[in-house]
Amino acid sequence: MTALVRLRLDIGYDGSDFAGWARQPNQRTVQGVIEDALARLLRLDPPPALTVAGRTDAGVHARGQVAHVVVPVASYSAVNGTMPRRLAGLLPPDVRVWRVSVAPEGFDARFSALSRRYAYSVCDDPVGVDPLRRHDVLRHPRPLDLGRMNAAAALLVGEHDFAAYCRKREGATTIRRLLRFEWHREEPAGTRARVDGMDGRVPPGMAARRGVAIATVEADAFCHSMVRALVGAMLVVGDGRREVEWPSQVLAARVRDSAVNVAPAHGLSLEEIRYPQDEDLARRAQETRRVRTLS
Amino acid sequence: MTALVRLRLDIGYDGSDFAGWARQPNQRTVQGVIEDALARLLRLDPPPALTVAGRTDAGVHARGQVAHVVVPVASYSAVNGTMPRRLAGLLPPDVRVWRVSVAPEGFDARFSALSRRYAYSVCDDPVGVDPLRRHDVLRHPRPLDLGRMNAAAALLVGEHDFAAYCRKREGATTIRRLLRFEWHREEPAGTRARVDGMDGRVPPGMAARRGVAIATVEADAFCHSMVRALVGAMLVVGDGRREVEWPSQVLAARVRDSAVNVAPAHGLSLEEIRYPQDEDLARRAQETRRVRTLS
Repeated sequence: MTALVRLRLDIGYDGSDFAGWARQPNQRTVQGVIEDALARLLRLDPPPALTVAGRTDAGVHARGQVAHVVVPVASYSAVNGTMPRRLAGLLPPDVRVWRVSVAPEGFDARFSALSRRYAYSVCDDPVGVDPLRRHDVLRHPRPLDLGRMNAAAALLVGEHDFAAYCRKREGATTIRRLLRFEWHREEPAGTRARVDGMDGRVPPGMAARRGVAIATVEADAFCHSMVRALVGAMLVVGDGRREVEWPSQVLAARVRDSAVNVAPAHGLSLEEIRYPQDEDLARRAQETRRVRTLS
Repeated sequence: MTALVRLRLDIGYDGSDFAGWARQPNQRTVQGVIEDALARLLRLDPPPALTVAGRTDAGVHARGQVAHVVVPVASYSAVNGTMPRRLAGLLPPDVRVWRVSVAPEGFDARFSALSRRYAYSVCDDPVGVDPLRRHDVLRHPRPLDLGRMNAAAALLVGEHDFAAYCRKREGATTIRRLLRFEWHREEPAGTRARVDGMDGRVPPGMAARRGVAIATVEADAFCHSMVRALVGAMLVVGDGRREVEWPSQVLAARVRDSAVNVAPAHGLSLEEIRYPQDEDLARRAQETRRVRTLS
């Protein structure tokens, strides 16, 4: 019998050139690329299978993705300690495994998670997106009123049936607890220049620019395309095409509403997965499994 | 006789896919792309010629580039006010003209400038660069000691002959006034997550990561490749391969030193051009021209 060890991997990627997280035949996927690198490093055939906290769609980025993988102790021992550095050499530059650690007892990347936190970035400057940010910031052609968006977002926080914002999957619950949904605006580049020094002057060409608007969206879990549908509903509130109450009215109807546009993938990034203290990991995983099964 | 107007353009670009600022035959350059868009918008043939504050090399980015252009008043009047927005539609997403304004009397984008400020970004995390920043952050494979780099940089500030850090051009002075040269470290992504909320917890996978090191480099003007040569000298001090005094010893020798590696282009960004108050623009331009001619 082979002694096995469960490893936790902390992962970041630029989703632009990936067909999403989940391995698919003949597609470049984050899961596929990392599993293949692990197979090479640990000399495992077939490659070990990753279990992920947040399955991201094609084009979605991540700074705080978490996955676990079970591998033979002997394979791990041979590279123990050098694994992130050696993986770094095997992986392409658009994906990084920041940390590899032996998972605490009871840890399951998916089922132990308390919550997932995403960020969605939008630029409503009439001239467009800073060229250096165009791969992870959506351009929105109309000015956004974050006060209205925050008022609309607050009405959605809490435990609800989010069927109206989900792509329906037969036999799966669409009840989720939305823990946090709020917008803030980054300082525009010109302001950063001022903070850096320069006698408090704002460079005149930059003073008028609008900083990137960022949504923080956190829930116990998300249905498929839920974050992007929620953001899509906010954008039409922010630019005045819908009333502040509209997204909550859509929610209450509990059916997928074709008036809700799913916002494009490239503005979205998975920022953080939260887990309980080590002693609660196994209990949390059991609870999550039970809830998902009941529904 | 055609009445003319001088316009100031505030510009940003991702330098990755450009063969630098300066127009060259059969090359995609920032100047060429903007001049062609201006020609289309203002119906000018041949395209109007841009004068730029900082000629950037292939692969170098800009957030605060400034140029001026002289065009017929009649052409400008036809689009006055809508120009940034209409240019935005004609330009590719890797270059933006943030602002177009009628230049104050005496303004010359190049000769009126008091100083140019650049930023150079380096990541010394052993696992590599955040995938979403890999187009504008250099990877350095050894840990950098910013204390040593700041001590070395301070020895270079002031008016000196920077011949040792310049690609020599016959008949041109290499005397420059280095106004500011200092390094700071960005908070790593994990710390940002903490600041965003989340009970003050640092996500465990991120806690160990090293934030991006950023050089602020400002001078009245720079010789060709000077910023990248200065940064190259700092990197070998920061990782311990050279002593803190070495860059100033190289400077004092006043000859190009082959031991100085010019740092790669993609970590560099032109952040800001500083100009005097409007009433001093013409005098500043005259002074600059005189100094450059004398030398």
